Amino acid sequence: MALISLSRRLRRTPFSDGVEAAGVKGYTVYNRMRLPTVFRSIEEDYRHLKNAVQVWDVSCERQVELRGPDAARLMQMLTPRDLRNMVPGQCFYVPIVDETGGMLNDPVAVKLAEDRWWISIADSDLLLWVKGIAFGYRLDVLVTEPDVSPLAIQGPKSDDLMARVFGDKVRDVRFFRFGWFEFMGRNLVIARSGYSKQGGFEIYVEGSDIGMPLWNALMEAGKDLDVHAGCPNLIERIEGGLLSYGNDMTEDNTPHECGLGRFCNTNTAIGCVGRDALLRVAKEGPVKQIRPVEIHGSPVPPCGDLWPVMDGNLHVGNISSAAWSPDFNTNVAIGMIRMTHWNVGTEVDVITPEGIRPASVFEAFWQ
Amino acid sequence: MALISLSRRLRRTPFSDGVEAAGVKGYTVYNRMRLPTVFRSIEEDYRHLKNAVQVWDVSCERQVELRGPDAARLMQMLTPRDLRNMVPGQCFYVPIVDETGGMLNDPVAVKLAEDRWWISIADSDLLLWVKGIAFGYRLDVLVTEPDVSPLAIQGPKSDDLMARVFGDKVRDVRFFRFGWFEFMGRNLVIARSGYSKQGGFEIYVEGSDIGMPLWNALMEAGKDLDVHAGCPNLIERIEGGLLSYGNDMTEDNTPHECGLGRFCNTNTAIGCVGRDALLRVAKEGPVKQIRPVEIHGSPVPPCGDLWPVMDGNLHVGNISSAAWSPDFNTNVAIGMIRMTHWNVGTEVDVITPEGIRPASVFEAFWQ
Repeated sequence: MALISLSRRLRRTPFSDGVEAAGVKGYTVYNRMRLPTVFRSIEEDYRHLKNAVQVWDVSCERQVELRGPDAARLMQMLTPRDLRNMVPGQCFYVPIVDETGGMLNDPVAVKLAEDRWWISIADSDLLLWVKGIAFGYRLDVLVTEPDVSPLAIQGPKSDDLMARVFGDKVRDVRFFRFGWFEFMGRNLVIARSGYSKQGGFEIYVEGSDIGMPLWNALMEAGKDLDVHAGCPNLIERIEGGLLSYGNDMTEDNTPHECGLGRFCNTNTAIGCVGRDALLRVAKEGPVKQIRPVEIHGSPVPPCGDLWPVMDGNLHVGNISSAAWSPDFNTNVAIGMIRMTHWNVGTEVDVITPEGIRPASVFEAFWQ
Repeated sequence: MALISLSRRLRRTPFSDGVEAAGVKGYTVYNRMRLPTVFRSIEEDYRHLKNAVQVWDVSCERQVELRGPDAARLMQMLTPRDLRNMVPGQCFYVPIVDETGGMLNDPVAVKLAEDRWWISIADSDLLLWVKGIAFGYRLDVLVTEPDVSPLAIQGPKSDDLMARVFGDKVRDVRFFRFGWFEFMGRNLVIARSGYSKQGGFEIYVEGSDIGMPLWNALMEAGKDLDVHAGCPNLIERIEGGLLSYGNDMTEDNTPHECGLGRFCNTNTAIGCVGRDALLRVAKEGPVKQIRPVEIHGSPVPPCGDLWPVMDGNLHVGNISSAAWSPDFNTNVAIGMIRMTHWNVGTEVDVITPEGIRPASVFEAFWQ
């Protein structure tokens, strides 16, 4: 196990003081920013997430802000998802593709107004792509990274905790919708969303200065709810089939390979960069696709790179994420599997760093 | 001290097996890839780098390849440095700026041919900016990240080690020039360059499959030269004034603030994005600039974020990198200092996490 060497380049967040005080034990780096990975242990954090409520520093979900008369046009250029019926107050999960249809990011678009959007990004400098497109097309739009850092509240007691700090009206926010709520005189976007299947909210904290006051208010208000600092949990997110850009998909993959075809309206998303490239795959379907995979036997080691999926000597796919699930008493995994082997129940072998393991394509994610 | 949680998203390199076998103790993440930070200890690695020869896995210096009839035009659009007199076989350090003149990266451009360039990047997804510009301007150029991973050979015995593997002709390669050399039947670009002041080379290893064979060949050939796995060394690079993008500068800074005005030919770099924005700062000069700073007293703690530089209650700058230098018996640091306080010898205070420390603006970097 190696240490992480921290420097300014791996950016601190408005909540780093709270994260450190809570005894963070491990980090990853996401959008050149610190993202905690474990507080007590991955298993203990997992159990607690499913039973109580956690506060997550997900500042690394940076925002790309589009502002100006061409904001909506630019937003539609970025994604094959048709955005015409999206209204302010909604969040859309939007695959972002390049001119070849390769995934550049899988963010959540937040429509603040017709001429103002946030793109809450996964791990790539999407800002540079959006700025490049806006500049190249001479669009009348300002593209920036604002001082907005999401703080996620996740777990079954999220509604109770949030109501204590923001009032009961926050309970009425519907899934992938957002409302405006006041804290310390600021109006904050709060969406019912988050990178777990346990329910909860994401607070788009605008202004770093109120980061720690909000963190402390939530911790104070949730004492009897057993609130604890947490973070996206490896086991829980694999169980729930929550994909991770950079892990389960890269710029090599089309949205269809990632199982995101339902978020693509390639025919009607007029102006989308990469539309031509995607039309054929939208019609024919991909030749490999993301699948839940069960790896049999004892707990697998940490998955730090692709693990080949084999049928004898035939390379039929790769595992990109895997972990032992205490609740399902098996190894849960996410893999990209060729169509010859992607049917439910197909038996395959997985080459792990600790040897070959039998595995099978599972029927659905485990949530 | 926290651990790093490794996953596919923090990419392995063609040399990771060698790095791990050499007992790497710490990592940072650079271009979403693993970059070692320490093997024995930072001080021991530092001493060894200055006396012997090291092999560095700097695969994280990813390449952006431009290929096609518009490659040279696109390259000039990216930087205010005039590239007209650059010939194939040369490397140029090129500030890359956005439309506002803010630094997006500070890579080395490698001119392979008139219609084929590599940009060897610092830590940001420059690929996305270049692709966006190329697409927006409908340029006739292919922009990709090829399977090229730099391996640096650094230290006073670099020439001897390289000659044993690539022949004596490698000694003739001049600074920031490159030649083509053969290994296992492949032609590889080898430049006299690298992120230290101890001299050496960077091998642009094309094809991941020859990564470990080359690593092993160098280790085997250099046994009696005390060759060792190494990495960019925090102390040595601050002593030498080697800036780090993301640490010592960000997109908020112009090249002139970073002391890179000598690499800007803003008047003649026709077509450069951001030229208009830079013309005024090129004429008037910046109001703050990078300076070497000596922080007095005992060794400072690790610098994980900006440290304010103060004159009484006046905030006059920030330290972005700092370390104790055994050779110069002082704390060496890099700061961005306002013009009112940037003259040599100016006394200031630095607010470190362990208290306020007297410091002074130094005359030159310590190399």
